[in-house]
Amino acid sequence: MKSSYYSLGIDIGGTNTVFGAISNDGLILKKDSILTRSSEDPGQLFDKIFEKNKVWKKELNNRYLFKDIGIGVPNGNYFTGMVKDPPNLGQEWQNLDLVKFVKKYQDIPVKITNDANAAAMGEKSFGVAKEMSNAVVITLGTGLGSGLIIDGKVFYGHDGFAGELGHIIIDPKGRICECGRQGCLEMYVSAKGLKYTIDDYLSRFPNDKTLLNLKDNNFDGKKMDELFDVGESIIQEIYEFTGDILGQGLAQASTILSPEAFIFYGGLSNAKHRILKFAKQSMDANLLGFQKNNIKILLSKLPDGEAGIIGASCLHK
Amino acid sequence: MKSSYYSLGIDIGGTNTVFGAISNDGLILKKDSILTRSSEDPGQLFDKIFEKNKVWKKELNNRYLFKDIGIGVPNGNYFTGMVKDPPNLGQEWQNLDLVKFVKKYQDIPVKITNDANAAAMGEKSFGVAKEMSNAVVITLGTGLGSGLIIDGKVFYGHDGFAGELGHIIIDPKGRICECGRQGCLEMYVSAKGLKYTIDDYLSRFPNDKTLLNLKDNNFDGKKMDELFDVGESIIQEIYEFTGDILGQGLAQASTILSPEAFIFYGGLSNAKHRILKFAKQSMDANLLGFQKNNIKILLSKLPDGEAGIIGASCLHK
Repeated sequence: MKSSYYSLGIDIGGTNTVFGAISNDGLILKKDSILTRSSEDPGQLFDKIFEKNKVWKKELNNRYLFKDIGIGVPNGNYFTGMVKDPPNLGQEWQNLDLVKFVKKYQDIPVKITNDANAAAMGEKSFGVAKEMSNAVVITLGTGLGSGLIIDGKVFYGHDGFAGELGHIIIDPKGRICECGRQGCLEMYVSAKGLKYTIDDYLSRFPNDKTLLNLKDNNFDGKKMDELFDVGESIIQEIYEFTGDILGQGLAQASTILSPEAFIFYGGLSNAKHRILKFAKQSMDANLLGFQKNNIKILLSKLPDGEAGIIGASCLHK
Repeated sequence: MKSSYYSLGIDIGGTNTVFGAISNDGLILKKDSILTRSSEDPGQLFDKIFEKNKVWKKELNNRYLFKDIGIGVPNGNYFTGMVKDPPNLGQEWQNLDLVKFVKKYQDIPVKITNDANAAAMGEKSFGVAKEMSNAVVITLGTGLGSGLIIDGKVFYGHDGFAGELGHIIIDPKGRICECGRQGCLEMYVSAKGLKYTIDDYLSRFPNDKTLLNLKDNNFDGKKMDELFDVGESIIQEIYEFTGDILGQGLAQASTILSPEAFIFYGGLSNAKHRILKFAKQSMDANLLGFQKNNIKILLSKLPDGEAGIIGASCLHK
C-alpha cells in the first residue's frame, strides 16, 4: 500500500489552536482544535497535538506520513524560529525557540511564521488572493493582524517583522496600546477595540440600556450584529465609527503599499460586512486621488480557522 | 572602430532636469542639466535633450549609440508610461503619454518611473543599498518622495503607485496638503514644509529677527544650516521639530515595511545630517519594541543628481 505525505499545519491563537493534516494541494484530511488557554504551556499543547496525530495515523491505517510542519503563531519569526512576547499566551511562550522545541517531538523540517502571515499564505495559495500579486490579508479577531503579499510572496521585511498594520497610528493622542504607544489601529478595530469604544460610549451615555446590556453579556458580537440589523442607532453609530477608523488605516497602508485588495479573515466574523461597508467609504475618502475606487475590500472565502492551517502547511513550499 | 552602447538616463525635477549617457555598469560618460522651468512644455525640454545628444555623439566620433532610454519623472507610472498631474510641472505635462512622446524622437525602448523610484534604483544598483534586500530611499527636496526596495527590487504596488511616504498622515488635523488631505508628512518634512514651519513660528514670534531675515532671503537653506551650527536656538528648535515629525513618519512606515535602512538623498542637502539626528531619536522612540535600534538611517553617497539618472538608466535591466 502506498503512503501519502502530508504537512502538519498548526494555527496557534490566543484562545484557540487549530491544526490539521493537509495535502500538497491544500486538502484538509484531518482537522481538530484545542483551547489554547487550557494548555498553559507549549509542552501541554504539543503533547495533545502529537497524541491526536497518532490517532489520525491509526484511523488512516498508517498510510499517512508527515513530511514537514508549519506553524502560525502570534509574534512567530520566520527567520529565527523564535516566538517573542506573544500577547495572550503564557509565560513559557515569551521567549521560545519554537522550531527547536517542536523538533523534539518529531525531527522533520519545521517552519514558523506569525498567525497573520500564515493566513496570508493560505489566501495566496488557495483563497481569494490566489491570482493576486499584491494584497494585504487582515485577520480581525481579538486583535488586528496583517500579512502582506508582495510580488506573489508573503513579505517579511529584513527581520521578519513587516506587516504590523494593527500598529499603524491613527491618533497620536488616542487610546494607549499594549505596545506602549498611543492610538494604534488595533485599539479601535478589533474585538478588544470595540469593547473600548462601547466603554467610551457608556461614559457618555451611562444609562443607555442597549450598551449596559451588551456589557453585561460580555460584549456579545452576535447580539451587536442583530441590534445593528434591526437599526439600533447607537450600534450603527459604533460600527460606523469603527469602520471609519479602519478605512483611515487602510488608506494609510495603501499610501505605502498600493495593494490590489485588502482581504478580511477571522473571528470578528459576522460584523465584518457591516463594518467593512463603512470602511470602504472611509478608505476611498482618505485615499490619494489616483488610488480612489481602485483598491478592493474583500472577505476571505476560506472557512474560519482554515486559512491559518492551510497557510502554515505551505511554509515549506 | 567598435561602437559602445549606452542608456540615456533622464531625471526630471520640478526645477531642474538632469540627463546623461550611462554605461551598463553605471559609469556616467556625459552629463548635463537644464532648468525645467525654462522649458515650459515637454517638447521644448526634449528638443534640448536630443540636441545635446547629437553634440555628445559628435564629440565621441559617433562611437556611442543609445540602446534605450529611462526616465524618472514626478508621478511617472512604470506600468502605463503615463505622467499624471505632476506637481510643479506645466499644463502639457498633466496627462501625458511620455513613453509615446519620447519615442517620436528616437524609436528605441523607453521606460519611465517616478523620480523617487529612479533614485531607489540608483541606490540599489550602485549606491548605499547595493547589498540590501529591503530598504526605503527618501528624496528630500521641494517635497518628500520615496522609492521602496523590496526583496532586492523596486516595488511598484499593483498599479505603480506604491511608496508615497510623503503622504503618510502624521496629524489628521494638521496642515492642508495639495493632495487634498491634512497633515501629510511632506507638509512638514521638505523645503516646502520648512517654509510653513517658519511661517508658523513667525506667527508666534512676529518680531524674531532671525526668522524675518530668513523669510526675506527666501528661506535660504545654507543660511539656516549655518545658524543651526552656531547654536541659534530657534533654528535648532525648528530642525528638532522637523526631525521629530520625520521620525514619526519613518516609524509608521517601518510598522508596515520593517526595512533594513532609510536612505536619504536630494536637495534639502546640508540640513540632512542635522535633521536626521533628531529623526533617528524620534524614530526609535516611536518604533515598536522589537524594531527599536534595528533600523538604520543613512545618507546617500551618490552625488546629487546622479542617483536619479543612474537609476533611470537601469530601468531596462
